[in-house]
Amino acid sequence: METTSATNHEKTRSNLFENVKVRLMETAKNTKKIGEDDPRRIFHSVKVGFTLTLVSLFYYFRPLYNGFGQAGMWAILTVVVVFEFSVGGTISKSLNRGGATLLAGALGVGAEYLANLCGERGEPIVLGLLVFILAAVSTFTRFIPNVKRRYDYGVLIFILTFSLVAVSGARISEIMELAHQRLSTILIGGATCIVVSLCIYPVWAGQDLHHLIASNIQNLSASLQGFGNEFGDVVSSKDGRDKSYHQIHKSVLNSKATEESLANFAWWEPSHGRFKFNHPWKLYLNVGSIVRQCACQIETLSGCTINSKPQKIQPSCVKMSMECGKALKELSTAIKSMWIPSSAVAVHLNNSKAAADELKNIMENYSSLPSEADGLQEIVPILVVASILIDIIKFVEKIAVSVNELSQEAGFKQPQLLHRGIVKPINDDDQVVVEIVDTPERKKPLRN
Amino acid sequence: METTSATNHEKTRSNLFENVKVRLMETAKNTKKIGEDDPRRIFHSVKVGFTLTLVSLFYYFRPLYNGFGQAGMWAILTVVVVFEFSVGGTISKSLNRGGATLLAGALGVGAEYLANLCGERGEPIVLGLLVFILAAVSTFTRFIPNVKRRYDYGVLIFILTFSLVAVSGARISEIMELAHQRLSTILIGGATCIVVSLCIYPVWAGQDLHHLIASNIQNLSASLQGFGNEFGDVVSSKDGRDKSYHQIHKSVLNSKATEESLANFAWWEPSHGRFKFNHPWKLYLNVGSIVRQCACQIETLSGCTINSKPQKIQPSCVKMSMECGKALKELSTAIKSMWIPSSAVAVHLNNSKAAADELKNIMENYSSLPSEADGLQEIVPILVVASILIDIIKFVEKIAVSVNELSQEAGFKQPQLLHRGIVKPINDDDQVVVEIVDTPERKKPLRN
Repeated sequence: METTSATNHEKTRSNLFENVKVRLMETAKNTKKIGEDDPRRIFHSVKVGFTLTLVSLFYYFRPLYNGFGQAGMWAILTVVVVFEFSVGGTISKSLNRGGATLLAGALGVGAEYLANLCGERGEPIVLGLLVFILAAVSTFTRFIPNVKRRYDYGVLIFILTFSLVAVSGARISEIMELAHQRLSTILIGGATCIVVSLCIYPVWAGQDLHHLIASNIQNLSASLQGFGNEFGDVVSSKDGRDKSYHQIHKSVLNSKATEESLANFAWWEPSHGRFKFNHPWKLYLNVGSIVRQCACQIETLSGCTINSKPQKIQPSCVKMSMECGKALKELSTAIKSMWIPSSAVAVHLNNSKAAADELKNIMENYSSLPSEADGLQEIVPILVVASILIDIIKFVEKIAVSVNELSQEAGFKQPQLLHRGIVKPINDDDQVVVEIVDTPERKKPLRN
Repeated sequence: METTSATNHEKTRSNLFENVKVRLMETAKNTKKIGEDDPRRIFHSVKVGFTLTLVSLFYYFRPLYNGFGQAGMWAILTVVVVFEFSVGGTISKSLNRGGATLLAGALGVGAEYLANLCGERGEPIVLGLLVFILAAVSTFTRFIPNVKRRYDYGVLIFILTFSLVAVSGARISEIMELAHQRLSTILIGGATCIVVSLCIYPVWAGQDLHHLIASNIQNLSASLQGFGNEFGDVVSSKDGRDKSYHQIHKSVLNSKATEESLANFAWWEPSHGRFKFNHPWKLYLNVGSIVRQCACQIETLSGCTINSKPQKIQPSCVKMSMECGKALKELSTAIKSMWIPSSAVAVHLNNSKAAADELKNIMENYSSLPSEADGLQEIVPILVVASILIDIIKFVEKIAVSVNELSQEAGFKQPQLLHRGIVKPINDDDQVVVEIVDTPERKKPLRN
């Protein structure tokens, strides 16, 4: 009996041990995946550690910071709070912090001066009132969308600094001394953060937004081409087939919040790579919003299952789907390479519209049901698919227009001017189009 | 000549003045609207102002805080940074701040002790290394979704406090004194925030989430009923008609981020009203996600325009749309009143499914086109609408299942047990259903 109990006990213990081990392994695996998914996260962590150590040691070695006194801790505080993943985030927070501290400090000194005039008894009342009014009004401004978007952190620091200065109870000469110290340490902290985030493996919010929009369009393209294949494929109903394209568009549906925060940060970023300082980030949001609407249509499309394939309707559906997919692919490539969308977009769009017109004609000419169908019920699914595809063409056209506008405003280059390439004529049904295929650029031709 | 120039100048000035005036008026109007849209924002601002003034004066009156010294500013800092719009947000940040300060302070003292052992030369190296490692590792953990969701702010404060304590260069006895001061001021700040946000017009993130989900379902219901009327209405194509229901569902499409942040804050909230401490907030997210999918279908539906109305198909579409709308309305009411969804939901769902089956039958029996239609093209739009509506029924059913699960887990009450009401039999086509209509409860029956 005792041995059984002991064995049981051991079993429980080893089970527990196993459980903990499995949990730990899982956590380690997940953590590793987070790093592998985006190695910039690891670089970011190291950058934060590095900057903080730098500023901390600066604070630690007293001789260096004797001029700053206790205020040195503000440098550490600034680094921890201000260092964001993207350059835009870091700059936004640094400038907000610096500007708000300056403004609030000045107002705080003013408040102190005003309160001094009111005598010893009036002082706390005046100061209390001022802190109350400024805090309440500033907090309310944080609900205004434009303020929230750009200056949320600044308003927070404004309230903080104003309260600290106003109620410090120090003489004005003391405050000036303190303000000078604190501002310089905040400047040191903020400047260190900006320099490190700019110079060591910078992560640009603008670039991320640019790539996100391009890859969202690419995802829709992949989805549509997948559906095109499915509609054309006779064995599509078999389960063994890879239907991963039914999921690709889903990530697009929920990208609004990410896009907006990236655009906000991008607004603060200096010129980098081929993005100028006032790159039209807002237009990316326009494109993104239409892309999401299109993804919604694709979501509906993914719910449709086709059983019968009337011979005349099916090819048009396949064509619409494939050509829309190709047009989107071209648009995505254009954004990625920062080219003005090539004429291939228009050609693919025209092809898909031609297919739609053809389909409409076919349907108008049907005065009875297609001969292959036994009843109306049988051809409804393909009619629905056709109708949604016709709607999708409209959205792809809108996307093309918005990407075109973006490419104009952002000064994208003409593809032929930028890249040496092979001109390859392709015959797409009855239309001839010239497609420019990119050849890999030689990086430093002069040294060869 | 001179007079003309002077007049022009005056004109420009008055124009400028007009412009500024218009701008100011607009800003004032927008600001007023922000307050009117949600008056709780005004209360929140006043609450922040009040708390800050309270803590500031506490800090100002030296006799009161002599025990705390310079650390008193940490109370102000805590209030400014920790006071969030919702109770959950405030509690989350306060606990994060308190817990992280405690943990980091203890680790910091340990680090200081360890560094002391390494002699005067080794000290800065050991401290620098420790700060680097802890900052880098902690920053990386902020990318782990679970940490980011609940403890993001805590990790930030952890890095901050650890660095400040580790490099303070003070003797350990001094640090203990400092830590005691700082912790107590942070506690005072955090506790004041929590008390004020709990006791004066509390804003519950959980309640907001609850209402958001209910109103999202209500929006879909209004949309579907609007479409139902449109499909049934002969004059629908006229422009004068109010088509606002084409827009209602759009807000639902982008509510994911809001829902998730509310759910995160709600997790921290204590029992309030009829929400217990561990109310199943996660299930609201499930419901929300299906509601969004359904909104996507409605978005596609809103792109369809019907011209012809074959006599046999149209009534089924109207019925499906209206019945789905009614089912959603019941579900929304059930959530709002925290009732287990009544049997009316199932009845409306069954009605809509019956309409769908009827429609399928009609279509199966069509071996040729409906007699009213001149060609296939003419009946395609209504077929598409019908098909999307059939899909929508599936989503409404899924919503009903998820709301049911929520109502079970959250312990919603049976409507008849909770409310006195009039039992009113309604005859819905061929099905008889008993609907319980709520009568207004008397608030304080004992005093009457």
